Amino acid sequence: MENYLKEAKAAASILATLEGEKKNRVLREIADALERECEMIMAANAKDMQEGKNAGLSSALMDRLFLDEGRIKAMAQAVRQIAALKEPVGRVLEGWVTDNGLRIEKVAIPIGVVGIIYESRPNVTSDAAALCFKSGNVAILKGGKEASQSNAAIAGVIRDVLRREGLPEALVSLLPDASREGVAKLIRMDRYVDLIIPRGGEALIRFVNENATVPVVKHDKGLCHTYIHAGADLDEAVKIAVNAKCQRPGVCNAMETLLVDRAVAATALPRLKEAFDAEATKLLGDEATRQIVPVEPAGEEDYDTEYLANVLSIKVVDGVDEAIAHIRRYGSGHSEAIVTNDHKAAERFLNEVDAACVYVNASTRFTDGGAFGFGAEVGISTNKLHARGPMGINDLTTYKYKIFGNGQIRE
Amino acid sequence: MENYLKEAKAAASILATLEGEKKNRVLREIADALERECEMIMAANAKDMQEGKNAGLSSALMDRLFLDEGRIKAMAQAVRQIAALKEPVGRVLEGWVTDNGLRIEKVAIPIGVVGIIYESRPNVTSDAAALCFKSGNVAILKGGKEASQSNAAIAGVIRDVLRREGLPEALVSLLPDASREGVAKLIRMDRYVDLIIPRGGEALIRFVNENATVPVVKHDKGLCHTYIHAGADLDEAVKIAVNAKCQRPGVCNAMETLLVDRAVAATALPRLKEAFDAEATKLLGDEATRQIVPVEPAGEEDYDTEYLANVLSIKVVDGVDEAIAHIRRYGSGHSEAIVTNDHKAAERFLNEVDAACVYVNASTRFTDGGAFGFGAEVGISTNKLHARGPMGINDLTTYKYKIFGNGQIRE
Repeated sequence: MENYLKEAKAAASILATLEGEKKNRVLREIADALERECEMIMAANAKDMQEGKNAGLSSALMDRLFLDEGRIKAMAQAVRQIAALKEPVGRVLEGWVTDNGLRIEKVAIPIGVVGIIYESRPNVTSDAAALCFKSGNVAILKGGKEASQSNAAIAGVIRDVLRREGLPEALVSLLPDASREGVAKLIRMDRYVDLIIPRGGEALIRFVNENATVPVVKHDKGLCHTYIHAGADLDEAVKIAVNAKCQRPGVCNAMETLLVDRAVAATALPRLKEAFDAEATKLLGDEATRQIVPVEPAGEEDYDTEYLANVLSIKVVDGVDEAIAHIRRYGSGHSEAIVTNDHKAAERFLNEVDAACVYVNASTRFTDGGAFGFGAEVGISTNKLHARGPMGINDLTTYKYKIFGNGQIRE
Repeated sequence: MENYLKEAKAAASILATLEGEKKNRVLREIADALERECEMIMAANAKDMQEGKNAGLSSALMDRLFLDEGRIKAMAQAVRQIAALKEPVGRVLEGWVTDNGLRIEKVAIPIGVVGIIYESRPNVTSDAAALCFKSGNVAILKGGKEASQSNAAIAGVIRDVLRREGLPEALVSLLPDASREGVAKLIRMDRYVDLIIPRGGEALIRFVNENATVPVVKHDKGLCHTYIHAGADLDEAVKIAVNAKCQRPGVCNAMETLLVDRAVAATALPRLKEAFDAEATKLLGDEATRQIVPVEPAGEEDYDTEYLANVLSIKVVDGVDEAIAHIRRYGSGHSEAIVTNDHKAAERFLNEVDAACVYVNASTRFTDGGAFGFGAEVGISTNKLHARGPMGINDLTTYKYKIFGNGQIRE
């Protein structure tokens, strides 16, 4: 492990100073090669699929794992899009001159060696590799075991291109020891690894957070709320709530709990029930909700659950204070929305709710690098530090200060 | 511990929305109170000094610990300066409108609950409390045991002001259990604590880094180099090198190793020796250095040592490549300088040396929040993530995205 990481660290300094034009050409070569090697990748994927079937993977997991020509073309296209993004390295973030004439520039530079731990979808292998490469970082990839042959095929294609382009293959690699012990070692190698990004289930993220000495940017769960305030346009509120829950229930920015202001509950809840019934959403509610619409009872544990399914908890709240208090207690700091036309209520919600993304009159489903206009995303950070919310390519950089003097010494 | 941290977390949401005017008034009140309670603080400090004397603390430590009226006035003045800084909370860091009309603002907000672990100097107690308060963060302070009575007196003064101003005293507190076990607990309380800043010796920082589940921004050692390139103005080079080493040898941004280009070694080294002799600097050098000037031999371990004393290792190097390679091997990523008038050499050094601060033609001693113009500093981060280099008040903030819609849903 140590020799492998030493190589990665050494490769980092080569990549850090590579010009954007060269990086983009390599990325386009990678995209072409993925398409060219489509058959080979599909053959590897077929083996994973067969093993997954034998192991009795769920149909949802099997679908995530599956690659066909269309999906491989989409992977290649994503790499081309990353190539087309604005160069993230070298941006001057700030600059000023001190009283004694030192010119100081705060300049974006690559982080170094980045370990990304993810689950079943094999397209993350090419996405993560391309995002790291574009931002000048060495990528150490640890995908799901069930996708190991697909990932090996994809990484092989990428490494072939790197070698042909005269670059170290160590710039993109799969962690050789993909066991839990291998991960446990990796996350304590702070001499060589600069950042670990775990994407996946709570158990994985807890394990990484509790054991890492390398800095961690977590991509954890989203327990997101939408609060329909007394001042809401109810047509808009229903539309936003249904979108936040139903457009794609299995993702982290989907709503899990709907808070309805007591002042509008009697009017809003029947309309919401009708709209959610049309989407076959299972509804649970507190006592006050159930006095207005017939839904199953919601308990403490429901408000604490990220369903990731077409299920919604509802609670009637007494105004902004109770809504904010509920979110403070149960929210995961991911995405929270208020629907209202009341300016003061919107301001209070925006300022007092502590989450990566706080919305007024829009669906929480927009918490996404693509929707934010970042072009591509590494994921959605639930960290408070370094990167928060949708994590774009610029969040894969850190900075250094360049100081230009003409003989200044400290008195 | 848990109840204590719960209180801190609850207090954080009050402080997060406090207006700047109120915060600044409270800070000025704290400054006044520190001056008013000068006698009481000195009396507490006298007890620490007596115990330190009994325990045989070094004179350097005793000097750091000592408070008199002048030093307490300086502490009060530092708090006033922090009050006068520009409000760090609420700055709009970026803002844009997406294609579908969502207005997105990236806004600076407080981090939350910040734990600061530091050593003997009691003025850090008021500095850290004021920096955290100004940036909207709850401060949990863990000072050196030898300063416990001074710190308790200072924190007491601050908490009295908070109470009189109708604010929770939990906004600033000393960690109740200041033992190693207390620290071990604190750094794993990621449910309540958002950031740990350890300032101090390597052992402390290693302990925190290896055991924390709370994100850590380290304030670690500085093993800084100055490289005199063949294209250097030698007058300037000697002046900068002497300043970097001798102006204050005991600090992290002081130079520990001088790299001298072989092309100018025969001319530069005698002049450097004369200048350093005048400062009574102990010099060690490699074989090539010793063939030119009579100094003691420097070994592998010397190049790996942060002396924090008036001692300097010297090495003759073959050009920019070897200088960069040496720094890559031994540098701590803190502050590195090149002295040269050669533009290409300067560019290579600036771009290829991976350190928080890279200098051309200036002393590394400028790596400092004050010298950078930040007004006050939390310390000098040796992290690569979140904050790097001099860490000012803005680095005590994180951000949230505020998204303003008018009914947008995701298609």
